[in-house]
Amino acid sequence: MTYLRDPAAIYAESFATIRAEARLDHLPEALHKAAIRMIHACGMVDLAADITGDERIAEAVPMALAAGAPVFCDCEMVRAGLIPRYLPKGVETLVTLSDPRVPALAQSLKTTRSAAAVSLWAERLGGSIVVIGNAPTALFALLEGLAAGWPRPAAIIAAPVGFVGAAESKAALVGSPFGIPFLTVAGRRGGSAITAAGVNALAGAPS
Amino acid sequence: MTYLRDPAAIYAESFATIRAEARLDHLPEALHKAAIRMIHACGMVDLAADITGDERIAEAVPMALAAGAPVFCDCEMVRAGLIPRYLPKGVETLVTLSDPRVPALAQSLKTTRSAAAVSLWAERLGGSIVVIGNAPTALFALLEGLAAGWPRPAAIIAAPVGFVGAAESKAALVGSPFGIPFLTVAGRRGGSAITAAGVNALAGAPS
Repeated sequence: MTYLRDPAAIYAESFATIRAEARLDHLPEALHKAAIRMIHACGMVDLAADITGDERIAEAVPMALAAGAPVFCDCEMVRAGLIPRYLPKGVETLVTLSDPRVPALAQSLKTTRSAAAVSLWAERLGGSIVVIGNAPTALFALLEGLAAGWPRPAAIIAAPVGFVGAAESKAALVGSPFGIPFLTVAGRRGGSAITAAGVNALAGAPS
Repeated sequence: MTYLRDPAAIYAESFATIRAEARLDHLPEALHKAAIRMIHACGMVDLAADITGDERIAEAVPMALAAGAPVFCDCEMVRAGLIPRYLPKGVETLVTLSDPRVPALAQSLKTTRSAAAVSLWAERLGGSIVVIGNAPTALFALLEGLAAGWPRPAAIIAAPVGFVGAAESKAALVGSPFGIPFLTVAGRRGGSAITAAGVNALAGAPS
């Protein structure tokens, strides 16, 4: 079979296709690399139109990583999508979804396990990087916690996906009053791969 | 904040939305559950139009799992997307991408690490379940191996994503002469979440 087998050539052709086809004009220059990686992760150049964020995140993520900040992820798929070579050695990537306290916490808080898991982040949230790629309720729980006075993360990359609460939770992030640099995807689309790709780009992955 | 917090209600409303909005008429009934879960994973009802497969896969996957077949995954994100409670206890989910032999193998085969990793599946491929959600070159390598006489898996769920080789590798799967039941997504779209969702549905996850 005839197909491109050289990894560097595959990457180069992929990013060239995205640069040729995607409309990024509405995004600040500082977010173009992240947008290209997010498009690369999903195969859809029209995702660009839904990507939105605060350009300060392009500095906030590298600074937080350099300072040793932990990276909180809402699920294992997001964590698995982070490319270790672009993260500082020894960085902590944390998923609390399988913490043994979560099922009881979810019951007592009358919410999802994803949202309950976020409540376990509160103590170490100050200056951290938050990555939410799956559960809208996790993003809602984060915003509620911040409104209740939780310490503020350095950056929020959040693109939960789906038909119930995804668009709404991301709109709430965009409209939130906390002034925390963010990157998101408006609407129903999103997911672990798109979200992790955004983090990888902000952490220094080329495109 | 007001939002739906009950996990069962969230699932029910999600699947109801998909059933109301998605056109599944072109798919055999046996693939509807998988299609609904795949749409659920990406937030796009129009994905339905690109989903295609062999309806025998709806029986092939449960049968293979019941027989103790291993599940080969092309990357950790796909494996992380499999929901353990829908798989038989003790099922082997295998990712060879980080096998220490892979970098040298990729160099000597002049291909990607993803494709080289697939060559390590050959020995145990007979009757297995193959799940490819990321790398087009992994799917190409599988099809080349099968053409060269590798033992045949019981089912192939493959929806690699992207701009170089994704559409082509999936078209090659659809047109392949091996008669192996498959499930795929035509075109550029795909990815770990969509692919794993298909496996989860075929393994018995409700929708």
